[in-house]
Formats: sequence, C-alpha cells, structure tokens
Amino acid sequence: MVSNLNDFHLIQTCSRSKARAGELITPHGLVPTPVFIPVGSQATVKTLTPDDIKDIGFSIVLANTYHLYLRPGIALIEKMGGLHKFMAWDRAILTDSGGYQVFSLASLRKVSDDGVTFRSHIDGSQHLITPELIIQFQEALGADIIMALDECPAYDDGFEKVQRAVSRTYQWAERCQKAQKRSDQALYAIVQGGVFPQLRHQSAEHLASLGFPGYAIGGLSLGEPKKLTLAMTEVTAALLPEDKPRYLMGVGSPEDLLESIARGVDIFDSALPTRVARNGAFFTHLGRVNIRNASYSQIEQPVDPDCDCYTCRTFSAAYLHHLFSCDELLAYRLATIHNLNFINNLMNKARSTILNGTFNSFKDNFLVSYQPTNEQIRLNQKQKWLNSHHPSQ
Amino acid sequence: MVSNLNDFHLIQTCSRSKARAGELITPHGLVPTPVFIPVGSQATVKTLTPDDIKDIGFSIVLANTYHLYLRPGIALIEKMGGLHKFMAWDRAILTDSGGYQVFSLASLRKVSDDGVTFRSHIDGSQHLITPELIIQFQEALGADIIMALDECPAYDDGFEKVQRAVSRTYQWAERCQKAQKRSDQALYAIVQGGVFPQLRHQSAEHLASLGFPGYAIGGLSLGEPKKLTLAMTEVTAALLPEDKPRYLMGVGSPEDLLESIARGVDIFDSALPTRVARNGAFFTHLGRVNIRNASYSQIEQPVDPDCDCYTCRTFSAAYLHHLFSCDELLAYRLATIHNLNFINNLMNKARSTILNGTFNSFKDNFLVSYQPTNEQIRLNQKQKWLNSHHPSQ
Repeated sequence: MVSNLNDFHLIQTCSRSKARAGELITPHGLVPTPVFIPVGSQATVKTLTPDDIKDIGFSIVLANTYHLYLRPGIALIEKMGGLHKFMAWDRAILTDSGGYQVFSLASLRKVSDDGVTFRSHIDGSQHLITPELIIQFQEALGADIIMALDECPAYDDGFEKVQRAVSRTYQWAERCQKAQKRSDQALYAIVQGGVFPQLRHQSAEHLASLGFPGYAIGGLSLGEPKKLTLAMTEVTAALLPEDKPRYLMGVGSPEDLLESIARGVDIFDSALPTRVARNGAFFTHLGRVNIRNASYSQIEQPVDPDCDCYTCRTFSAAYLHHLFSCDELLAYRLATIHNLNFINNLMNKARSTILNGTFNSFKDNFLVSYQPTNEQIRLNQKQKWLNSHHPSQ
Repeated sequence: MVSNLNDFHLIQTCSRSKARAGELITPHGLVPTPVFIPVGSQATVKTLTPDDIKDIGFSIVLANTYHLYLRPGIALIEKMGGLHKFMAWDRAILTDSGGYQVFSLASLRKVSDDGVTFRSHIDGSQHLITPELIIQFQEALGADIIMALDECPAYDDGFEKVQRAVSRTYQWAERCQKAQKRSDQALYAIVQGGVFPQLRHQSAEHLASLGFPGYAIGGLSLGEPKKLTLAMTEVTAALLPEDKPRYLMGVGSPEDLLESIARGVDIFDSALPTRVARNGAFFTHLGRVNIRNASYSQIEQPVDPDCDCYTCRTFSAAYLHHLFSCDELLAYRLATIHNLNFINNLMNKARSTILNGTFNSFKDNFLVSYQPTNEQIRLNQKQKWLNSHHPSQ
C-alpha cells in the first residue's frame, strides 16, 4: 500500500556493532537516521515554534493521535488542511496511534478484540477506538509515518497477559493494514512482548510476515530496569527485517540512545529531553545537571561552554539560573532548545561516525565521560511522572 | 552630568495637536519617539528572547530595579558585566527606580524623608532604599536611562497626602541628581501630584528647575478613570520643558497611547500588552479580542488577517485557540509577539503621520474602528490584578 513517496535506504552498517546509518524518504523531505524525533503531543513541541525546531536541525516531529483526537478533534484539524498546515510544520511528521496513551493516561479502559473503550483524562467523556478508526484518524491528520494500534501491557504484567496483548496487537496491526486507504503514508507496526524474549520473538515474526514498511519496538521504557530495556531492544531489533526502519518508542536519554543505536535501532522518540528541560535539567557531556542548583547562580559561562545552541551562545548559566528561580517562561524555552540541540548533535555525531567507521569508539568515549542519572532516582522520577497522569507528554 | 552620549532631538511637532516626533540618542543606539517600551521587569520580556524583541523592531526595553534588587541582586548583575550583558540585550535599556513597585507590591512599607523601609513581596525580608542607593543600584545595572526615586501615592489619596509626596519626590530627585556619578546615563525625574492640577503644576515646575534630561509623568494609570488619566497627562505634559523627552509611566492600551501622544508624550511603558497576551487577549484594529472564545476554534484565518507579525503570518486563529485551550506554553509567546508587534506598528504609524502632518486623522480613524475595553471591565481587571500582588509585572 506504500508508494515510493515513503521509503527507507540503509546506507551503512557498523562493522563492530549493529549500528546503522540510513535515510527515510517521506513526502515532506529526507530524514537521516539514526534520528531522534522531538515530541509535540498536542501539535506543538512544548515552548518551541516550528522555526526554533528547524534552527536546531530537526527534519521530523511527532504528534499524538490520542491527544489530538480529544483536543481539538481530528475533524477540526482535517478541516484546517491537515496537521502539517495546522501546526505550520512543512517537514515530516510521525503520529503515534495513541495505544500507549490509552493505556497510560485514560481511565476505566476496557479492552476487547474490537478495540478499546476508555474515558478521557481531560473531561471523563467515554470513547471507543478501533484499529480502523485509528487509521481513519491518522489519514485525516495526514502525517508521513503513522502507527498501528497496539495493546501496551504494563512492564510488570505476567506472561499470559502479555501473550494476549501480543496476539491482539497482531490482529489489530492486520486490521490497520487492511483499513489503510492513503498510499502516501508509511504504516509501522508495533512489536510488543514485554520482557519475555519468547513473546518478543513471536510478535516480531508475526508482524514481519505482514510486510510493514517499518517496525516499532513498543512496551519498553515503562519503568522497567534499564538493563531489561536494552536486552529486549537487542532481542527485538535482531528479529526485524534488515531493510526496514526500526523505531524504539519512548527512549530519549543520551546513554540509552547510543546503546540502542548500537543494537540496531534507527528511530527514537521521547518526551524526556523536553520534559526535564522544563524542570531545569540540562544535558552536558558530563551528564545531566540542574540549573536551579545554587552553584550556577554566579557562573558567567554558559551551562555547557562547548555547546553551539542558541541558549549557550547567548546566555550565562547565571542568567538561566535567575530565570528558573523566578519561574520566568523564557526559562523553559531556553532549556528545551539546549536539550534538543544536545540530542540532535548526538544523533548527527552517531550517524557520521557510523559512516566513517568510528561509531564504537565515539560511543565508548561519550559514555566514559557522561554520568547517567542514578537508576533509583530515575525510576522514582518516572513513577512520579506516571502517577501525575501528565495530560500531554 | 549628562554627556552627549544621551540626548533628545525634537524633530517635528504636530500642527493640530501636541504630538511630537523625535529621537533619543543613547549609548546603545537611537530610539525613535514616540516609543512604547516593552516591560522586562526581571531582565526578561516575558516569553521572548532578545532576538524576538529585535525581530518585532524594538530598540529599547525596560527592566525593574526593585525586582532585580530582590532577585538576582544588583551585585550579581554588576559582577556579570552589567544588565545589558546579563540579559543579552545590546540596544537601549531603561531601568525604573522601583518607587512604584515599593508602593504597590511591597508590604509594611514605612516612608521617611530618608527613604523607604519595606518588606520583600517574595520572602518578607526587610530592606531600606534611599535616593542615593537607588542611583547606586542603577549605576551598577548600567541602563541608558535611569529614574529618580519617587513617592507614588494611591490614586484616591487626599490632597495633603499627595502634597507631601510631591515635596518628598522633589527632595529625593535632587538627592538622586547629586548622587549620580556616571555621566553616560540619563537620569529622568518623575512628576507626581495625583489628580490635583495644582500639585502637578508644582511638581513639574520644581523638578524642571533642577534641569533633568527627561521627565516622567508618574502616579497615573493606577485605577483612576481614564478621563482623569488623560486630563492629568495633558496638564502635566504642557508644564514640562519643550526640548526634553516626556515619559508617561504605565500606559499601554492602544487608545491611551494615541490620546497621550496627542497630548505631547514621547515615551511609554506598560505591562498591559504582554500581560493580557498571556490571558489570550489579542489587539486587533477592531479592538481587543480573546482567542479563548469558542468562536475562534474553527477560524482558518489568522487572528488579524492584516497583521504582519510572526504569529499571524504563521498560524490560524484555530491553532492559537487550541494552544490556549491546552495551556500550551507556546501560546503565551505567540500572543506576546502579536501584541507587541501591534503596539510597535501603532507607534511607528503615529511617528510617520506626525512627520507627514496626518497624525490627527490617523488617530481619529483608528479610534473610530478600535473598540476599547469597557471601562468598568477594565477597572475590575486592573483591581483584580493589583490585588493579586503579581510579583513581577
């Protein structure tokens, strides 16, 4: 069903890891891979204009069908000329199917083979989504890459529950494929299987047999230990077709991005870099630092003196500390620009080193100096965030 | 004490009103007048970068000594190389003395001839400011135009109380003048006198006798009826030296700007355009409209189809309505850009029509189509805002 308006070219595979450099061809331009996609759940990457996002260098953003379905409504965006026009973004867009959001944000959800009934996290109104509807919505939105509806179990669900989710995800993917009418959108299927290699194997194999133009690895980064995330990523990526793009959903910390690239992943999205930015956390080559810390109040240098982003080229750490201390709105934007620039540079560097054969040493050097956030703190933060049922990211 | 680094050239006076076109010369560039100065109380015009402000076309911004004194502290900004460098703004800056803020925001203030003792609205800590200290602070900040310390009575204070404030404001202005050490900053005095023409007269005459390079009209736009604001503006402006700039503090609605220009005012500042923007209010040639109104949810056109700002060139009213509905941070910035662009265009147009002799008809035509906010609603909103003791603007 996919025309050559959408395609993937694998350009180079690393000889010492599974890392791959390639490019996505979309109706709205080329997307070099590996790529990190900034999250704009509600048709806006929080705090940034399309110009800001282009200035950083991104060629694709993500929006969320679940959020847009609830507000402002799919029909409205269609009437406004589609999502590209609505959010004034003329490069590529990927829309998530909303499967993850229904399972993480909505309440009173009831899953049947037909689809999912749930109550809106905004006003409690009741809704039913089915694979067919999700495709209809995403065709109306008009993104370049669209996602099949999946059932996303919790990371601590048992084998049988995850097995049922794998079966249902397969059936739904098939129905999504059949429901697709537009030929200019690439429909990716989502592999589930929790932390069970056997189920990951089954899910990947069955979905691959349906011949999708791309495959996502879903159901990870949900609060499970990082080791498990990486192990499941490795298992799943290895099972997916070589010539199709692989998209790991919900991963966005610098260390996880490099480790997952090394395991053969091409595409990533996560709200992490933008979400933590709004709390004052800045990525640097030494690790994540928090600008609210009093130690920054008198620093005349930028947060990261080597950084080439607008924020670091323009402002001292002391000024950013001041903005965050006063809860000034500009603070959130400047931090968002910095973190997205950091991640985009990291992906560009990963790609160029894959192409010139030095990816492994680049990754090792980066990880030697980069201090990841403490695992327990990370899990606590994640849980706190999940508990807060944050409506949009 | 002022060198020719700071000067004011009166270029043209309107033959049918008191409107004037001129230019301020400052160490950080020319500022054409009449001019509206965007308010950046805490060394940031809320939501905007310096680049955004330049893109709109402003050549001067305002920051507030009171706010910066409390956070991050004057000494810190001095250590960081001064206010221009701290906020990365290389054009002109005006710092307010903090007189108004002490009288409107701080609690438990005690005024004596020496100065004002008050408690911080942030943490309750106690502080004393004197005319000498206020000059010292503003010299450390390094703005191009600085303000004398004044005593700002409430708009409903009686004659005797206002009379005492006028005397004290005069004595403080003289002490400020004597305390000034830097020769590259223009120190403006502030005329008080409440709604009493006799006291306005006395204040203006006494201050003018001291020979300041500029004069502000203070103690207005504090909740009094608009008619009184305009009447007092007219009385006071007429008393001030012809060859010096006149600065009406706290005025920023489109209709008030034009009416005050017609009465001989050159400089304005107000948080109104940026504050109401964050509530969803957009200026248009027909009046102020609120984008949160459901009627905008399906409008594919910009809020103001004739507007040349980034927001209107890029986004539909429906998209802005969506962002405000979702409380998306981008909303506040896009609205701020629009309102400041509207006000800046209005001032540019006022200036060009003063220069070509058509100001009066421009003003009359504008006011025929522009529907001002209902007076009672306006007063209620203002009172609500004053009561909320908004910490920064």
